[in-house]
Amino acid sequence: MTAAARSTPFLAIDTQILDRNIKRMAAQAADTGLVLRPHVKTHKSIEIARRQLAAGAVGITVATIGEAEVFVGAGIDDVFIAYPLWVDAPRAARLRELSRTARVRIGADSATGVSQAAQQLTGSGIEVVLEVDSGHHRSGTAPGDVAEVALAAHRHGMTVAGVFTFPGHSYAPENRATAAAQEGEALLSAANRLRDTGVNPTVISGGATPSAGFTVTEVLTEIRPGVYVFGDAQQWELGSCRKEDIALIAYGTVVSHAGGRVVLDTGSKILGPDRAAFSTGHGRLLDHPEARIVHLSEHHAVADMAGARLPGLGDVLRVVPNHVCSAVNLVDELVVLDGASVTTWPVDARGRNS
Amino acid sequence: MTAAARSTPFLAIDTQILDRNIKRMAAQAADTGLVLRPHVKTHKSIEIARRQLAAGAVGITVATIGEAEVFVGAGIDDVFIAYPLWVDAPRAARLRELSRTARVRIGADSATGVSQAAQQLTGSGIEVVLEVDSGHHRSGTAPGDVAEVALAAHRHGMTVAGVFTFPGHSYAPENRATAAAQEGEALLSAANRLRDTGVNPTVISGGATPSAGFTVTEVLTEIRPGVYVFGDAQQWELGSCRKEDIALIAYGTVVSHAGGRVVLDTGSKILGPDRAAFSTGHGRLLDHPEARIVHLSEHHAVADMAGARLPGLGDVLRVVPNHVCSAVNLVDELVVLDGASVTTWPVDARGRNS
Repeated sequence: MTAAARSTPFLAIDTQILDRNIKRMAAQAADTGLVLRPHVKTHKSIEIARRQLAAGAVGITVATIGEAEVFVGAGIDDVFIAYPLWVDAPRAARLRELSRTARVRIGADSATGVSQAAQQLTGSGIEVVLEVDSGHHRSGTAPGDVAEVALAAHRHGMTVAGVFTFPGHSYAPENRATAAAQEGEALLSAANRLRDTGVNPTVISGGATPSAGFTVTEVLTEIRPGVYVFGDAQQWELGSCRKEDIALIAYGTVVSHAGGRVVLDTGSKILGPDRAAFSTGHGRLLDHPEARIVHLSEHHAVADMAGARLPGLGDVLRVVPNHVCSAVNLVDELVVLDGASVTTWPVDARGRNS
Repeated sequence: MTAAARSTPFLAIDTQILDRNIKRMAAQAADTGLVLRPHVKTHKSIEIARRQLAAGAVGITVATIGEAEVFVGAGIDDVFIAYPLWVDAPRAARLRELSRTARVRIGADSATGVSQAAQQLTGSGIEVVLEVDSGHHRSGTAPGDVAEVALAAHRHGMTVAGVFTFPGHSYAPENRATAAAQEGEALLSAANRLRDTGVNPTVISGGATPSAGFTVTEVLTEIRPGVYVFGDAQQWELGSCRKEDIALIAYGTVVSHAGGRVVLDTGSKILGPDRAAFSTGHGRLLDHPEARIVHLSEHHAVADMAGARLPGLGDVLRVVPNHVCSAVNLVDELVVLDGASVTTWPVDARGRNS
């Protein structure tokens, strides 16, 4: 069986490229003395997390308790929920259950939030890592405000392990190095404020895939990139991966030549609708770099072939999603191409939003 | 149990609003002499399709063979796959299986595509409806070209039931009536070309939710709206539903006040990342119409409250997704609020892309 024998659209990964990507980031972290704690929201796959750990990752990062439950349930015993959870009683019960078999850390970015968490999690051994805004302006306190949050944690008996940030503003052309520098500055400032309160931060954590190559290694102890395992059109266009590093591909069939363009069945329900301001289209055709997907709806991707001869109706093309985290979360399984063999891996944590 | 007792984020529907929406569109179609064949890709729910049929819909519209399999498997016996399928042997086998228990029609928009389909489906009784471009410029032939496609179908023994279009350009403010008028013109022209070839079209089908109220009822026989069952922020902002007609809501918890804004856990993995050019944000807060979601990532929706007092950390807010079809496809089940009772309905056809 070949991948082409499956009905399109589907997502397929090349394990040789995947393993190369996993090893490259692990080597880069090791060479610079950083702990690698990859964000597994990208792949939501137990098999891929295991490969990351085997290559040297110290543990994993997740976004939700539901994701943590999937990976801890599979035996992974060190998980950071990099999110300012509101820990009510039901969430506390789930976190306590996780902490029976894994080291669990959670995020917090306010005195109110950390007080709530600490009171709900008394005696669980769960630690908190304080989130700092390094320029992405999503969640996170200003670096100068971490002391107040740390003091609230201490007041309720919760251990502060350190600080983290997400330099999401590295998702812009020419901004990767600047965002990494701002990440380093914000984390250094926050770590120093923690030290002022008597905490010696053991975790100083940052890192997205676009910024990972520019990490201020004198400041950070840990990076949490996710997308690097697969790459995608965003990373390709940002310059943080090469075309030949892209491990996950959507396969689509040409269904129409309407308007002198190519219409593929890889719509937004398989590619994901994401389109960053810097993106040149709604995804890219791997084997036609000059083409652009100019229109995307749920079941149609319309590609302008830039004057090239149109692929024939019924032809199967390889499409690179803009944002691979969104694409993977749309399917129950990934087709796995390993040399001549074709199997599938489940997307174990698909849809685990809560 | 109340909806608020579940861990956010989740999607919930109000059945009273849902049933009102279903009945309103059915009455509108009946009053204007149109057949209603709702597109079920919006809800992917057998229960909701049954309610639409009970209210007067003649059958359903789907986008993929996989969706058809779910609904025909549940006993629905009249399905139109409104898509220019490339019918290879595996797809032909699946379509033949469907045709054993249901009336099946498929789309086509080229002589090559319809010849392929006709040859694969000989003797199945499956009919084709020819797709026309009425101004959305996605798939579909020019109205003048349908004769050529019809002749190719006839040459290979396939019955042409009629013509269809999707007036997707009605998704723009001030364009709803114009798009409906263009839909009417294109379908009339195409139907007349079919008559020239000796075909009397029994199906002249159009209709999206924004254009449905402007349908040229003298031309069309059928409409295929989908989103009307739920409504969403796009329809609200287009003026094709009212705020109080919105039947599907995402429930999210306030997790952060970073930057003086409200950060909710309703990220793009529950709302969907869709944002149309005309949208004022990444979704809307139902109970704070003045607020705008100014930033959306996978697990964070950042809302600017426009000067209003910030809802407290831990508060649960109601969020209206921009595009409900994308949101529903992200979850395995919908929470169902029916007066005091809270149950769930499965999203039966979630992820059935092929």
